[in-house]
Amino acid sequence: MAYEFKAQRRVEFSDTDMAGIMHYSNFFRFMETAEHGFYRSMGFSVADLSRHPRLGWPRVHAECDFRKPLRFEDMVEIHLLVAEKRTKAVRYVFRFRKLNEEPPVEVARGEVVIVCVQHFPDGRLASAPIPPEIAEKIDLAPAELLGP
Amino acid sequence: MAYEFKAQRRVEFSDTDMAGIMHYSNFFRFMETAEHGFYRSMGFSVADLSRHPRLGWPRVHAECDFRKPLRFEDMVEIHLLVAEKRTKAVRYVFRFRKLNEEPPVEVARGEVVIVCVQHFPDGRLASAPIPPEIAEKIDLAPAELLGP
Amino acid sequence: MAYEFKAQRRVEFSDTDMAGIMHYSNFFRFMETAEHGFYRSMGFSVADLSRHPRLGWPRVHAECDFRKPLRFEDMVEIHLLVAEKRTKAVRYVFRFRKLNEEPPVEVARGEVVIVCVQHFPDGRLASAPIPPEIAEKIDLAPAELLGP
Amino acid sequence: MAYEFKAQRRVEFSDTDMAGIMHYSNFFRFMETAEHGFYRSMGFSVADLSRHPRLGWPRVHAECDFRKPLRFEDMVEIHLLVAEKRTKAVRYVFRFRKLNEEPPVEVARGEVVIVCVQHFPDGRLASAPIPPEIAEKIDLAPAELLGP
Repeated sequence: MAYEFKAQRRVEFSDTDMAGIMHYSNFFRFMETAEHGFYRSMGFSVADLSRHPRLGWPRVHAECDFRKPLRFEDMVEIHLLVAEKRTKAVRYVFRFRKLNEEPPVEVARGEVVIVCVQHFPDGRLASAPIPPEIAEKIDLAPAELLGP
Repeated sequence: MAYEFKAQRRVEFSDTDMAGIMHYSNFFRFMETAEHGFYRSMGFSVADLSRHPRLGWPRVHAECDFRKPLRFEDMVEIHLLVAEKRTKAVRYVFRFRKLNEEPPVEVARGEVVIVCVQHFPDGRLASAPIPPEIAEKIDLAPAELLGP
Repeated sequence: MAYEFKAQRRVEFSDTDMAGIMHYSNFFRFMETAEHGFYRSMGFSVADLSRHPRLGWPRVHAECDFRKPLRFEDMVEIHLLVAEKRTKAVRYVFRFRKLNEEPPVEVARGEVVIVCVQHFPDGRLASAPIPPEIAEKIDLAPAELLGP
Repeated sequence: MAYEFKAQRRVEFSDTDMAGIMHYSNFFRFMETAEHGFYRSMGFSVADLSRHPRLGWPRVHAECDFRKPLRFEDMVEIHLLVAEKRTKAVRYVFRFRKLNEEPPVEVARGEVVIVCVQHFPDGRLASAPIPPEIAEKIDLAPAELLGP
């Protein structure tokens, strides 16, 4: 069972905007990088094409508090923590730390609620319980890791 | 004085992901489209290079609730509403409506808190009161427009 | 029959990078905006889900010459021209003009070669002739429009 | 002296589009990842803020031939090679190889011509010779590495 995952990303030039800092929408892309790495670490992929009907993991809520900017070439750790686990949904917290500063500073904190859905061939989506072989691998993070 | 702005965007192919729907990070880019349109509608630009020190409008918080997916070529209206106005910060609410459905459906609702900062030549940022000539143009939206 | 299409885009904040200009990868996204607008103008969509097997229009070549930078809030016209038409492929030329300058300046020129493919349910792709009802609508642009 | 650099990227979910493959504009972002890694490997950054006037490295030409699609979670190697070196410009070739296939397949080949410019405080850009301490580190790749 797993309740956390740490991904690393270097801020790319194309992640920045004319204010000289990482564009805020990219924090949400980085959260997804950590989320998909978490799934891979448990041996499954969000894009498992062998299942019928195909599963999807859309977000129903996403948020982020931005404390300090990230800049080009900053190394950032995205620390995913499982904050809540329901039959059809999981809430993740993401702590962004800038690694090229000593001690690493928390620059942002995000949160995403994903739900499990089934994709039908006609394009329709319907919410579905997380399959047990996936659900049983996902554990709740200890409260102290979620921070203040 | 202004308390709202409506922007329109068509969902581009490059806005979609392999799930066949608009990638969630793009809702945050679309919010910014409406925000900058709002500023232009009041006669100023977030990128006013004539000011010294230069002003910036970073986000300290952003969130979004996703109710229905957007797909390629959907026409979406992003309705910005001023939900809160403080000396150094403004909170905007964004209501996303899919226009190519009758009646237009609210597919998502977002929120962003921006603060006014000064950019110093050495790269330092410091929060600053919103300049009066800008602040006096921004009005609070009537509560009923913010919806349930 | 049609041999051209003009799309307009305003450069968004999220299109810029820390050099203060539009990131070069976005010129390629803008070309696609014009291409898909061209298809819509002829009454069909690249994402026609009613066809079986489904058609795709991947690019096999793309290029761009960048002459002048585009900046935040610039209004840009992307002028698509059909430069070549083959059984299974079309070559488009794209002329970027900055409209908020008098006279409008050509800031970039791009080119894309797309091919028609069939998507099979197992994920396989195979090149295919452009369906006649589409091909017969696409005409070659007069050479003088393609410019020097 | 250096004439090559290899960067690795995993294709992210947000890099894909509704056709289920990496969106073509992202190949150009990946080329830049390799280019900036090349500069870092030689001990300098494209965003060196200590120089006055500040240097920039805009692209004047970019192109890519796409042979096979990249998909979500594919591991891709971007192999930068110095193909040409002039006083004010460098031409890079990029060979994309998909590493999660044995033997690794070349899926795309790109090319970018960058020029050295000086950014003046008033926003003006002027082309400039590549500073000798940078130019002397950049070597021409052997022709056989550039491939057929």
